[in-house]
Amino acid sequence: MTATIHKLGEQRQPSLDPMLKLVAPEMNKVNAVILDRMQSEIPLIPELAGHLIAGGGKRMRPMLTLACARLLDYPGERHHKLAAAVEFIHTATLLHDDVVDGSDMRRGKTAANLIFGNPAAVLVGDFLFSRSFELMVEDGSLKVLKILSHASAVIAEGEVNQLTAQRQIATSEEKYLEIIGSKTAALFAAACRIAAVVAESGEGQETALDAYGRNLGIAFQLVDDAIDYVSDGATMGKDSGDDFRDGKVTLPVILAHCRGTPDEQKFWREAMLGNRVSDDDLAYARILLRRYVAIDDTIDRARHYGQRAIDAIAHFSPGEAKAALTEAVEFAIARAY
Amino acid sequence: MTATIHKLGEQRQPSLDPMLKLVAPEMNKVNAVILDRMQSEIPLIPELAGHLIAGGGKRMRPMLTLACARLLDYPGERHHKLAAAVEFIHTATLLHDDVVDGSDMRRGKTAANLIFGNPAAVLVGDFLFSRSFELMVEDGSLKVLKILSHASAVIAEGEVNQLTAQRQIATSEEKYLEIIGSKTAALFAAACRIAAVVAESGEGQETALDAYGRNLGIAFQLVDDAIDYVSDGATMGKDSGDDFRDGKVTLPVILAHCRGTPDEQKFWREAMLGNRVSDDDLAYARILLRRYVAIDDTIDRARHYGQRAIDAIAHFSPGEAKAALTEAVEFAIARAY
Repeated sequence: MTATIHKLGEQRQPSLDPMLKLVAPEMNKVNAVILDRMQSEIPLIPELAGHLIAGGGKRMRPMLTLACARLLDYPGERHHKLAAAVEFIHTATLLHDDVVDGSDMRRGKTAANLIFGNPAAVLVGDFLFSRSFELMVEDGSLKVLKILSHASAVIAEGEVNQLTAQRQIATSEEKYLEIIGSKTAALFAAACRIAAVVAESGEGQETALDAYGRNLGIAFQLVDDAIDYVSDGATMGKDSGDDFRDGKVTLPVILAHCRGTPDEQKFWREAMLGNRVSDDDLAYARILLRRYVAIDDTIDRARHYGQRAIDAIAHFSPGEAKAALTEAVEFAIARAY
Repeated sequence: MTATIHKLGEQRQPSLDPMLKLVAPEMNKVNAVILDRMQSEIPLIPELAGHLIAGGGKRMRPMLTLACARLLDYPGERHHKLAAAVEFIHTATLLHDDVVDGSDMRRGKTAANLIFGNPAAVLVGDFLFSRSFELMVEDGSLKVLKILSHASAVIAEGEVNQLTAQRQIATSEEKYLEIIGSKTAALFAAACRIAAVVAESGEGQETALDAYGRNLGIAFQLVDDAIDYVSDGATMGKDSGDDFRDGKVTLPVILAHCRGTPDEQKFWREAMLGNRVSDDDLAYARILLRRYVAIDDTIDRARHYGQRAIDAIAHFSPGEAKAALTEAVEFAIARAY
């Protein structure tokens, strides 16, 4: 049987529940590390970090580390610390992203930078980033350190690349994929790969899990970028239309723009430059996205990467872990509906 | 002969020249690593990093790594990459500091965040920070990684601590020393200590060089904080009076405040809160600093730490390296005159 991505209309809605169930006992240990290691004698640090870390979020990346370790039947505990390190890197980039974007909301709450100020958000991000390296050093694997330090550099490059592309309607699909490959997929890939490193499963399994994580990460981001034009603030944890107002040239915009008439292209150019950001403009943008099937085709692209993720782990024996990792991909896609 | 810190009026003005001369050939190699490793396919990264890195700065921290390695007669080259890593950490913190402080000037030039924007400064800082860890991983010493990841976390804590203390006139000298010990001296200490790690000189020498760097770092910062009230923008590379206007409670202010009358204390409190930031207020602040000998006593405190730095390396055989490290301390103090 070939696993394929469920399409709309099938009976059961894919969910993260199997993955959550699979990793629940170990996730408690990861959470204990996270809570323990975000402490500091400077009260503002746990206060601000806690706002974001304790405040929910799916813990998607550490969950992937745990699930991949289960897939490989890794019996040890080293990956708990490393999963926490991955979450710290992610949290640090979220804090800095919100400063960079001037975000109002994050995970359904007021963004940390608005409550605590940009300076504190920058510095606590730096602290969590340093702390993540301390955790890796404690584990002691140079290979893991190499994977995660490289991923961190790639994430930062991707963020700068995104900043450079912001408001540039001429951004190509290739460049967009390069950006999300760096800013999002690199950490998904690293989170999965390090499970194979601690399990000492060999280069082949490392590459397989890296590919699973990378493709899942791309699919996730594509769906996120689609959702930004369809959902409302209550479900997303951020305001719908944020990308539109921030002039972020995501794939839905790229597709609608390249398929549009000269007048419509002019609209997109002006919108991305920040000259068309009213509610009426956003409503018109949504009409154009529908007219050119830009959202559905973005989801189709996501489904392509999701399928690649599933195929990357096709050679593993069936079981709870493989099923959970597969359904996580289906969940990533299904969020769009 | 006991080395002591030169006081004003002695014949030769201490300078960094002996240190610069000592490390010049090796510093070229460190600079080559720095220039090579700040590259990226995203043009904004080398452009922004180059503004700060190529734009001068004393390269004090990598210079210390090189000079300490010379003191230990280390014959290898490993420390070139690590000295570059130290400079990257320092540059990343400068970029983030300027965002945090809203600085106008840095190293006598317009601050990077003003030219390239805060978002780019935050993200390129993150990139350089990640790159520094990649350099350390290439070197492969877990001990060095531990020292520098810990120093980075301590620096971030110190910066948050400073942020918390900002505008708080009640900040004690103890708390101030704790802050500068973290935000400045921790990296000086680490830069020196890692030389002993690569030279495999043993725990005793590591501790000695750590103490040298830490005390020198504190002396440096104390003198910097004194200079902020005495120099003009042309010599400092930043505007004189910046700390006053930013409400940074440095030792000169702490001393003048605790020695002042209730009215004068009220002035300092209002000034630190940002309600007394005119040129006249700054002039009055300088009068109070003179009245209570606050600048001279800050320098005296610096001299104390400088002496401790010199004594920390007293047991090393005399030679070019020891002389250069000693004069670097004298130079740190003499800058105040």
